[in-house]
Amino acid sequence: MSERIKIVVNIFGKDYTVVGEERSSHIREVADIVDKSMREIFKKNPNLDITSLAVLTAVNNVNEYIKVKEELEEMKRKINEK
Amino acid sequence: MSERIKIVVNIFGKDYTVVGEERSSHIREVADIVDKSMREIFKKNPNLDITSLAVLTAVNNVNEYIKVKEELEEMKRKINEK
Repeated sequence: MSERIKIVVNIFGKDYTVVGEERSSHIREVADIVDKSMREIFKKNPNLDITSLAVLTAVNNVNEYIKVKEELEEMKRKINEK
Repeated sequence: MSERIKIVVNIFGKDYTVVGEERSSHIREVADIVDKSMREIFKKNPNLDITSLAVLTAVNNVNEYIKVKEELEEMKRKINEK
């Protein structure tokens, strides 16, 4: 079993404890992306409450995730066709 | 310019207006993933407030996103090497 690490990251001014199996540098990178994402959405919608901001950040990121995942699957399909 | 659509989705019991260029079925699929993600994290951490829940959902999904993106880039690199 791989080792689970626990690190504290700051996202949008608040500390969160994240538990994961990844390197701490990777978790920090992820937290940084979420932080930047929230700040960008906040800039465009300064009246949003922080929960909505966080939910919409998750929505945006899942959207990007699905696009990349579909691209990857399409590529795998093409490789298998050859 | 592509058409922007506005739809209302329900995530973790709250309605959110999402604006996007994607089909509404795609946006609903994304909202569904976020909703499920939040419910899963909530099950494991019932004491978390909803903002933290949403932030950690974003963190989890960005983590998956980076992994898939790296896999995609690695695959593209291999294809170009051939």
